Amino acid sequence: MVSRDRRPALKREYPRFLDELKEYLSFPSISAHGDKKEIQKCAKWLLAHCRAIGLNAMLYPTAGNPVLVATTKNNSDKKSHYIVYGHYDVQPPEPFELWKTPPFTPTIRGDKLFARGASDNKGQHFAHLKTVEAYLKTKTPLPCDITFVIEGEEEVGSPNLALFLRKNRRMLTADGVIISDTSMPALNTPAITYALRGIAAMEVTLRGPDRDLHSGSYGGSVENPAMALSHLLATLRDKKTGRVLVRGFYDDVRTLTQVERKTLHREPESDQERYRNFLKVPCLFGERGFSHIEQTTIRPTIEINGLTSGYQGAGSKTIVPSSARAKITMRLVPDQKLDFVIKVVIAHLKKHCQRSVTMEIKNGHGAGPYLFESTSAAVRAAERAIRRVFGAATHFIREGGSIPVVTDFKKILGLDSVLIGLALPNDNAHSPNEKFELANFKRGMALSAELWQELVL
Amino acid sequence: MVSRDRRPALKREYPRFLDELKEYLSFPSISAHGDKKEIQKCAKWLLAHCRAIGLNAMLYPTAGNPVLVATTKNNSDKKSHYIVYGHYDVQPPEPFELWKTPPFTPTIRGDKLFARGASDNKGQHFAHLKTVEAYLKTKTPLPCDITFVIEGEEEVGSPNLALFLRKNRRMLTADGVIISDTSMPALNTPAITYALRGIAAMEVTLRGPDRDLHSGSYGGSVENPAMALSHLLATLRDKKTGRVLVRGFYDDVRTLTQVERKTLHREPESDQERYRNFLKVPCLFGERGFSHIEQTTIRPTIEINGLTSGYQGAGSKTIVPSSARAKITMRLVPDQKLDFVIKVVIAHLKKHCQRSVTMEIKNGHGAGPYLFESTSAAVRAAERAIRRVFGAATHFIREGGSIPVVTDFKKILGLDSVLIGLALPNDNAHSPNEKFELANFKRGMALSAELWQELVL
Repeated sequence: MVSRDRRPALKREYPRFLDELKEYLSFPSISAHGDKKEIQKCAKWLLAHCRAIGLNAMLYPTAGNPVLVATTKNNSDKKSHYIVYGHYDVQPPEPFELWKTPPFTPTIRGDKLFARGASDNKGQHFAHLKTVEAYLKTKTPLPCDITFVIEGEEEVGSPNLALFLRKNRRMLTADGVIISDTSMPALNTPAITYALRGIAAMEVTLRGPDRDLHSGSYGGSVENPAMALSHLLATLRDKKTGRVLVRGFYDDVRTLTQVERKTLHREPESDQERYRNFLKVPCLFGERGFSHIEQTTIRPTIEINGLTSGYQGAGSKTIVPSSARAKITMRLVPDQKLDFVIKVVIAHLKKHCQRSVTMEIKNGHGAGPYLFESTSAAVRAAERAIRRVFGAATHFIREGGSIPVVTDFKKILGLDSVLIGLALPNDNAHSPNEKFELANFKRGMALSAELWQELVL
Repeated sequence: MVSRDRRPALKREYPRFLDELKEYLSFPSISAHGDKKEIQKCAKWLLAHCRAIGLNAMLYPTAGNPVLVATTKNNSDKKSHYIVYGHYDVQPPEPFELWKTPPFTPTIRGDKLFARGASDNKGQHFAHLKTVEAYLKTKTPLPCDITFVIEGEEEVGSPNLALFLRKNRRMLTADGVIISDTSMPALNTPAITYALRGIAAMEVTLRGPDRDLHSGSYGGSVENPAMALSHLLATLRDKKTGRVLVRGFYDDVRTLTQVERKTLHREPESDQERYRNFLKVPCLFGERGFSHIEQTTIRPTIEINGLTSGYQGAGSKTIVPSSARAKITMRLVPDQKLDFVIKVVIAHLKKHCQRSVTMEIKNGHGAGPYLFESTSAAVRAAERAIRRVFGAATHFIREGGSIPVVTDFKKILGLDSVLIGLALPNDNAHSPNEKFELANFKRGMALSAELWQELVL
């Protein structure tokens, strides 16, 4: 096996690779509200890094943050070409006070690397990058050409990636896409994700008086927008059954066969009490009649991601707030249609909003749900590579999250993606103290080395 | 009339008085969350100012912010002694972006002075202070002794004033208290407030998972605390009738006679459409069966003053928030009992909170409702002074706000208060662009000059 030859190189160079990953993680490349200069700095660092390791690299400007393209392609004209997708942007780190070490001061504690973006997603695609570096440095011929497409807006729904793919269709002609941006059930339970939930984001603002009012002088005579918002949000979900109460919301949800439901239940994480204890909640709560695995994979949801109204500082401020706002996201499952779900939710909000306030709804990013072809040659190749590195069979899992670009790769480039996750459920993606298992950084590199061999077999 | 002699002095010195008021207003003496150093600076400035104009002044430390005491008392031993109460602390100025000029850069536009604290309460008690200065400067004998008690914690419920009054009972032996911290219905409609609503503040926090969770990976399987909070808050008030749904809440509310209700309705502000337009709301909304004046004076309320949960920045963050919090205040009317209302509201919250989250309730400041003796000699004296300055009869009004110290003055010192308001309903107390009418600063000084004469007749 040619790939085996890379293992010593990966091992020897590991301390440096880890230092480089820490450097990469030190950029606060927050796409939601971050300083655009920091995003640019991170992209430029990545560009320089890719060039230094021998890739042909370019930053492609978009209406938002630039897309990095770094390829092994040259005139040699390999038979196969795969795209590795990843994203250099990260989730906002707030609330800061809950981080044990600062989010952008990457810190190793035990066998874990803590930093915002450690597993979502810098650490994961960096493993692939370092393997390709090892090939190039040791002058070992790569079995296929590889092009990294690392974008900077995944955490805000990749609003500019579709146009980028459309514009660069020719350059991106390939045999498939490899994405490591999902998770595996446990450290020794490797997995390929075959289904993703879709997402639809919304921001709902209710406005009452044109300024905050003294709650003594005016309270009682005008609607309190925070109260109206509570009433409105309370209509979205039944507090006993956990069912979404929006008419039409479940219309297109696919009913799974008993066999499929049993497969889901066989996952090692199905221990309810362990799961409850991991999340530290008084009890689990979700749609009645479904297990927590089903609730997070095959069932759609409406979640409130944030509430804002009036005075939030210490002590009290006796006001009727002028407005109240909620950030909401829906997670969608096959065969729900994005546009239809947005339509029925907006209709519901309009129907139930009090007339004593005005409502503004802003639509955010969105993506439909996705089911993968799980019997393709690329998936089989990934299974073999996984067995070699982990010494275990691949679990085929559904993921509750959304990766909108998977749909774009299919629609625009006709490419199927293989989702090999290196994150763990307790990696705290989107939460304080995000981490990446160093074991998975190492195994990710080994896996990547095997993968390119297997893909061309 | 001795008082007439003060008028030319007040007029001559007015530009300087105004400059001094602006200086006083430039201190961000925010009691809720402010920098304690700024509070101290403001108190020390006031101390120096009182000494400079010839008062015996001292700062009395408390567990919180100091109380300023400045008196005309010396060995001359006047027959009468009145206390002027005020507060040098102000409401938080947020949201900053809605201020046309910065809250602590006092700015005159037209015949109004804009600044946080302009009318609530620095401008109002400063008028009394300047009048006393005019007496002292012109060496005109004051008809009575006057002691200013200006505290620094009114906006957070005066938690330390009761103890201060108890400790200094002897020094504060007096004939009554004059408070200018309320409003008058319109510029030429002077008023004495004869009823105040009480207040009870609370902070309710619901907690779910011990960290924010990825809403894709976990959403659907655990309670969303923001959703649970919406459900909980929605149980507090009927969205159609506007009635508070807490069992026992209205038990002790006094029913007014038709005569009393008619008196309320005779106020010039009773024009509903004008009121709606002033508040810029789509429509008025309050407890069914009561006018907006009744809703804000003789009826109790529950208001949400603030909501906080999850992500509130730009863009979106796809999380199930770890917690959600609401700041709540109740306004109480005769004969509701503070402790009883707090008890029934907590019982209600406990009954309706979902079991899938944990709840923490923090009690804030509180004060019972208050009704004044409106036929006392002091009130009659104030009426005469008002007629002299405004050329109009006094309106006797109820105020929706709360001044907890009024209860303390009565209970601890046995003193009745006379509430002569110099603020206007559109002065934006507690809101951005708070202002004070320069006309009322001037008339406040003239009124003060008349008042001391009338009080000793």
